Amino acid sequence: MKKANCLVAQSGGPTAAINATLAGIYEAALKNDAIDGIFGGLYGIGGIIHGKTVDLKNILKDENIKRLRTTPSSFLGSCRYKLKYPDIAPDDYKKIFELFKRLNIKYFLYIGGNDSMDTILKLNAYQSKFSDDEKVMLVGVPKTIDNDLRCVDHTPGFGSAAKYIATTIKEIAWDTAVYDMNSILVAEVMGRNAGWLALSAGLARDTKGRCVSDLIYIPENPFDFGKLIDDIKKIQKNKKQIVITVSEGIRYSDGTLVAQSGKKDVFGHGQLGGAAKTVAEYIKLKLGVKVRAVEINVLQRCAAHCLSKTDIDESVLIGKKAVEVAAEGKTGVMITGKRTSGDIYSQELGYENIELIANLEKTVPENFMNREKNGVSEEGLKYLLPLVEGEINVEYKEGTPVYIKLDDFCDSL
Amino acid sequence: MKKANCLVAQSGGPTAAINATLAGIYEAALKNDAIDGIFGGLYGIGGIIHGKTVDLKNILKDENIKRLRTTPSSFLGSCRYKLKYPDIAPDDYKKIFELFKRLNIKYFLYIGGNDSMDTILKLNAYQSKFSDDEKVMLVGVPKTIDNDLRCVDHTPGFGSAAKYIATTIKEIAWDTAVYDMNSILVAEVMGRNAGWLALSAGLARDTKGRCVSDLIYIPENPFDFGKLIDDIKKIQKNKKQIVITVSEGIRYSDGTLVAQSGKKDVFGHGQLGGAAKTVAEYIKLKLGVKVRAVEINVLQRCAAHCLSKTDIDESVLIGKKAVEVAAEGKTGVMITGKRTSGDIYSQELGYENIELIANLEKTVPENFMNREKNGVSEEGLKYLLPLVEGEINVEYKEGTPVYIKLDDFCDSL
Repeated sequence: MKKANCLVAQSGGPTAAINATLAGIYEAALKNDAIDGIFGGLYGIGGIIHGKTVDLKNILKDENIKRLRTTPSSFLGSCRYKLKYPDIAPDDYKKIFELFKRLNIKYFLYIGGNDSMDTILKLNAYQSKFSDDEKVMLVGVPKTIDNDLRCVDHTPGFGSAAKYIATTIKEIAWDTAVYDMNSILVAEVMGRNAGWLALSAGLARDTKGRCVSDLIYIPENPFDFGKLIDDIKKIQKNKKQIVITVSEGIRYSDGTLVAQSGKKDVFGHGQLGGAAKTVAEYIKLKLGVKVRAVEINVLQRCAAHCLSKTDIDESVLIGKKAVEVAAEGKTGVMITGKRTSGDIYSQELGYENIELIANLEKTVPENFMNREKNGVSEEGLKYLLPLVEGEINVEYKEGTPVYIKLDDFCDSL
Repeated sequence: MKKANCLVAQSGGPTAAINATLAGIYEAALKNDAIDGIFGGLYGIGGIIHGKTVDLKNILKDENIKRLRTTPSSFLGSCRYKLKYPDIAPDDYKKIFELFKRLNIKYFLYIGGNDSMDTILKLNAYQSKFSDDEKVMLVGVPKTIDNDLRCVDHTPGFGSAAKYIATTIKEIAWDTAVYDMNSILVAEVMGRNAGWLALSAGLARDTKGRCVSDLIYIPENPFDFGKLIDDIKKIQKNKKQIVITVSEGIRYSDGTLVAQSGKKDVFGHGQLGGAAKTVAEYIKLKLGVKVRAVEINVLQRCAAHCLSKTDIDESVLIGKKAVEVAAEGKTGVMITGKRTSGDIYSQELGYENIELIANLEKTVPENFMNREKNGVSEEGLKYLLPLVEGEINVEYKEGTPVYIKLDDFCDSL
């Protein structure tokens, strides 16, 4: 088989594990007999359209491949560019396939979430009438902290985000418990339509195994202030300090976001209030207790100082698998991982037709929440636990973790 | 010498290192020839007034003393109770000294910040006319993430908070850099009057040694929006994504807090806006660029998953020193640490009269900031660096760190 080049790009929101997948792809591509060179597409498909690529071959050595595995965010940059259909934006497609030709790209691996899989879907549909020789192997590689991709047990990046959230909620619960008074803390985590990240707060347990997030609310269940107050009052019977975790996307039964409150900023502009803030303000009004709202910020997607070893190891393997699948001549597919049956957790990698994944979402199944819909169930815990297990001792220098940047290695970006 | 008992309590805001000091005190007290039993005062002096104590002797074994060292928050609970003068609240003093007598307490060690040192000061003044036999050795033990105590090089707890902030700012900077567009992120850290924590954002460096927080503003220097915009424009010439760190307490030249904006919440109540949010909104208005405000939340004081080894080791030693100083018969003092001269960092422990410390504050010296007053200077860096160095591998179980609680060991609190 004639050797050709591979192009890899990253898309969507950053995660703490997306570069581990890139490291896996990089290592596997350099070793694969079908692949000659490896190029990086900068700033996702949006950058590729504008010809932004970099020759990655030989720029990363052993030490820096190891560092790349534990560097958060997107080493190649990212985009939120939604590719239009070919009849609306024919130039985009022309530019992309011209670039593929110019760089002799036969394998395009795109690491991203469900929007990014839509890019793979559209590019693959576009080349459906090409001859086999002209076709590029288009392979989607999953990543998203949201864990909302179909056809996979879970998504790379979710495990580390879940570990960070569980750790954070635990530390916040310890912080909240210091004063001898009634108080409520409302923590907000990401998740507009799917409550996976809020669910993972259920992993935060004390040494007696009790969940330290007393209540958890996710977007899958309609949010009701009356029920919230009832839930709080039940817990207050035995506990002074209460921790509540909510998804940013919790909404009332009519579909309105709780965060959608008509708040004005200091300059008089309307702004989104934040789910936790709105919930906290309501509790204060109703119960008159000390309440604090905490937004678990962007750190939940980029805290590489708190990685799940399982997540990083799997993310690397998924990258390697993607190279293998592309080199085998598969196109229009996404790499998948299925949990094997049996008591000891393991994952089997494969691939699936991209049409079954792109633009679709996977929400939290009903049985992963408890019957009161305000906490995680045993089944939910069983699902979550293996994904956050194991720690990685990231390299530190002068007190902070060593993370690399592309411009450490090449000047002209 | 007749043996007597020791009472230890914790006060003020939680830190990630205050329990390391408690662990040091616990270990040293058990071994000290002058000390018989060790009691814990619950919820600081506020709880002690109400007789809330627990016999700590023998409740913690080796494994759990090790866990206590890396457990965040206040193991014994805390308070923000400001002791009134004896002529105003004589009953408080009566109750405290009656408790001392009842439990045969000869040594009272109080771990806290400058408000807590005021408690030591007042109690010591109260007992000034007691006979030597009746006197209790009152020793303050420093802790505060704010690093604003006088007579010490730095405070226990600050190093871990600074390490967490530097790590977090680094990860946020990596997160911010992914999209190929101009953007500004404004991060807010704690510090009402002293900018030590914001200064520590200057420790976040890339592999080329460049500070990733492009601008840093602290309360010590009057904040001016005109200068901010000028500072940003200078950086924008060479950089698309900008990170700014501000102290919560930044204020205009007239002393008004930047955070003090007349914002209304969703229920129509006035509320404090947050310094970062106000700054972010102003930048958006003036420069029309994508801006995000991130509040580094309570995690900065309780993120025991990201401890500075230097801080924890020193905090334990300071606890041990406090027992030694109390057993030597010193009262009305606080344990101090002075940086030794020489190239290799080390700290020498001693003690100082509490009157020189209580109710006073130490702010950031002018030469620790650069000439433009928007970043850390070389001297500042030299001061900060040793305090955040070294990592601790905290024990994990089921994906999250193992932290202990007092009620794991005794039922009736």
